[in-house]
Amino acid sequence: MFAEIITIGDEILIGQIVDTNSSYIARELNKVGVQVYQITSVQDDKEHVLQALEDAQGHADLVIVTGGLGPTKDDITKQTFCDFFQDTLVQDPQVVENIQNLFKRYHLNLPLPANLQQAMVPSKATVLMNLQGTAPGMWMQREETVFVSLPGVPYEMRHLLQEEVLPRIIKRFKRPFIYHKTMLTYGMGESAIAERIASWEDALPKDVKLAYLPSLGKVRLRLSSSGKDRKKVMAKVDEQMDVLHHKLSDIVVGYEDETSMAEQITKMLTAKKMFVSVAESCTGGRIASEIIQHAGASSSFKGGVIPYETSLKTEILGVPRALIEKFNVVSLEVAESMAAQCCKVFNSDYAIATTGIAGPTKGDGDKEVGTVCIAIATPHGVVSEEFQFGNDRFRVIEKSTNKAFEMLWKEILKN
Amino acid sequence: MFAEIITIGDEILIGQIVDTNSSYIARELNKVGVQVYQITSVQDDKEHVLQALEDAQGHADLVIVTGGLGPTKDDITKQTFCDFFQDTLVQDPQVVENIQNLFKRYHLNLPLPANLQQAMVPSKATVLMNLQGTAPGMWMQREETVFVSLPGVPYEMRHLLQEEVLPRIIKRFKRPFIYHKTMLTYGMGESAIAERIASWEDALPKDVKLAYLPSLGKVRLRLSSSGKDRKKVMAKVDEQMDVLHHKLSDIVVGYEDETSMAEQITKMLTAKKMFVSVAESCTGGRIASEIIQHAGASSSFKGGVIPYETSLKTEILGVPRALIEKFNVVSLEVAESMAAQCCKVFNSDYAIATTGIAGPTKGDGDKEVGTVCIAIATPHGVVSEEFQFGNDRFRVIEKSTNKAFEMLWKEILKN
Repeated sequence: MFAEIITIGDEILIGQIVDTNSSYIARELNKVGVQVYQITSVQDDKEHVLQALEDAQGHADLVIVTGGLGPTKDDITKQTFCDFFQDTLVQDPQVVENIQNLFKRYHLNLPLPANLQQAMVPSKATVLMNLQGTAPGMWMQREETVFVSLPGVPYEMRHLLQEEVLPRIIKRFKRPFIYHKTMLTYGMGESAIAERIASWEDALPKDVKLAYLPSLGKVRLRLSSSGKDRKKVMAKVDEQMDVLHHKLSDIVVGYEDETSMAEQITKMLTAKKMFVSVAESCTGGRIASEIIQHAGASSSFKGGVIPYETSLKTEILGVPRALIEKFNVVSLEVAESMAAQCCKVFNSDYAIATTGIAGPTKGDGDKEVGTVCIAIATPHGVVSEEFQFGNDRFRVIEKSTNKAFEMLWKEILKN
Repeated sequence: MFAEIITIGDEILIGQIVDTNSSYIARELNKVGVQVYQITSVQDDKEHVLQALEDAQGHADLVIVTGGLGPTKDDITKQTFCDFFQDTLVQDPQVVENIQNLFKRYHLNLPLPANLQQAMVPSKATVLMNLQGTAPGMWMQREETVFVSLPGVPYEMRHLLQEEVLPRIIKRFKRPFIYHKTMLTYGMGESAIAERIASWEDALPKDVKLAYLPSLGKVRLRLSSSGKDRKKVMAKVDEQMDVLHHKLSDIVVGYEDETSMAEQITKMLTAKKMFVSVAESCTGGRIASEIIQHAGASSSFKGGVIPYETSLKTEILGVPRALIEKFNVVSLEVAESMAAQCCKVFNSDYAIATTGIAGPTKGDGDKEVGTVCIAIATPHGVVSEEFQFGNDRFRVIEKSTNKAFEMLWKEILKN
């Protein structure tokens, strides 16, 4: 069974927004055994949307359309659906009621005519009630293909998909079980990994697919398979993953389907009843913000300080001024002192410290743009390393964050 | 002139990554007058890629393909190009040299056979030298359509696009001038805005297009037009934007093409020679990390503290313990004290403070999940507000961050 996702909106095609909806939908469909054949983004243009619907019907059993459902004049999905299904719009009293309830809940004035216009739906559509917003979803069918229309606002789309769409898909379609498992490795290049595991890769069963996903400082390796028998599919992939783990044990960090690096660190520390804090100069809060993204962060994260201005490293953290003057504010010595002081100030077991020049211009001190020193304080001392992360500000911050997590992770494993 | 973007990779279609490449390419093409007709994401499958190339030739003068060029066995773009162009792979000596240089620069061992394999390119291709990585780009033509293949690693793709592809496009194609201008508004819903500007919208010239882009707590309004005469196109859009600005002056924050909210605040403060600092509890460094993303942040950002654990609000910031006990750690009183103390500790003119319950479980104190108190300290006193941002952790953090910037921005404008 195949699905196609169509996202509608000029804002996608002029690059004003990144389309995150299709990624979310694809992931959720995969979980229930639906393989996505293609994702297509098209303009707010009736003819173009019609063409995309026609094309999609040619290769998919299920077509999920997002966007183009707002209350304003630039939205056109419903009119296009009427054309495609040779249907007309009628007012749905339940949607009217839902809109009125939403306005009451948020203490707004009475709905405007433009809001009530959203209660008009194609007469043949099964309405998917949107309790989070005023635009309803729609479920329609042409020949053997099911077409679903969802609003483009991510929060509303996610709720409708979970509450209304996925349960209907599970009921309506026969689906295989699809299984992906992704290993996260740090510190070795894609080609070197490929060379090391070449003989294993060549001997992989035909229905287990390997993919390499390289990004800044890390390579993810994904194994995928599908079939009717959930247990057999999982066993086949897990078995191969175990062999792979053995071959790459020196660089494996964990499995991505479980958790991100920051989340894994939180889990490890929580289990040890230990705490981490951060002193972030060049990463400016980025490391902390990744830690607190995950629920449960407070059980192992004390907090942190962002001593962006050089003098604050002394005033807030107590890094000796003489140390900064002697070694430069971007130095292993200062990073180590920041980490050690951070542990003291925040009464934590571990601390991450970063100091560097993200660019584009040199800051205090005279190190090259891209130079970053990272230190990790542990219950057994402080480790540190100096890096050169290039001259792209965004990349320097990103790589520093990833590397800091990697270093902390290795230290926690050691102790 | 129309372009199509094709992104290749199973990781996109299973929702493992968000495709940010196509958004970047679309934006850059738009800047040089190339309109993107469609974005298509397809699997790592030769037949499917071939079909997408055929389809794209039907409606585009320029097709940009990313992904599928790595050194490992799961990458298939070059083989597919050979089929599509009836060509064969040959080794390019300059690419070999480039790969060897890259390995030297990063002090790596000699290139592996898999790396040198990347120097194989279709014989008819114009090679686009990738100085940032080992996979070269390719420029080929079939009938009247130009096909460009770029690596999927975002950093390498961006460099090749800027250095090699865009200059060739400018030389090769006649293009109109495309102009977008986007106004950023806070505090009024999409429908209410639409009602207020209805008569103006109805009278818009046919070649000026309006779009509404709503997201958490803000609505962006985009006007677009295109034509041969750059000056006339800009004048037409700017003129309408001025009228719109007048109609919405109470909710306009600025124009997005210029800068993000955080960047605008940095510019305003830098001009006033003033500084801001942050005390982030529930946003955990997110506000700071948005500020420092932009070059020049250090001229108006002192730094901040993340007192995630309740006791740190007293120990590091000096918020009186009695205040927390009396009013609750999530309260306007504590937020205000955090902001005022933050100004003192960091010696800044302004400070942002956040304290709240991001969820999913209640933290210290007994406020509902989603309750967030934000305070802004200014040279003239402290303002604060309490919000209810719902029960989705990610959304609570995101909305708090946006609201904090909005509140600070309004205070800076006042003073």
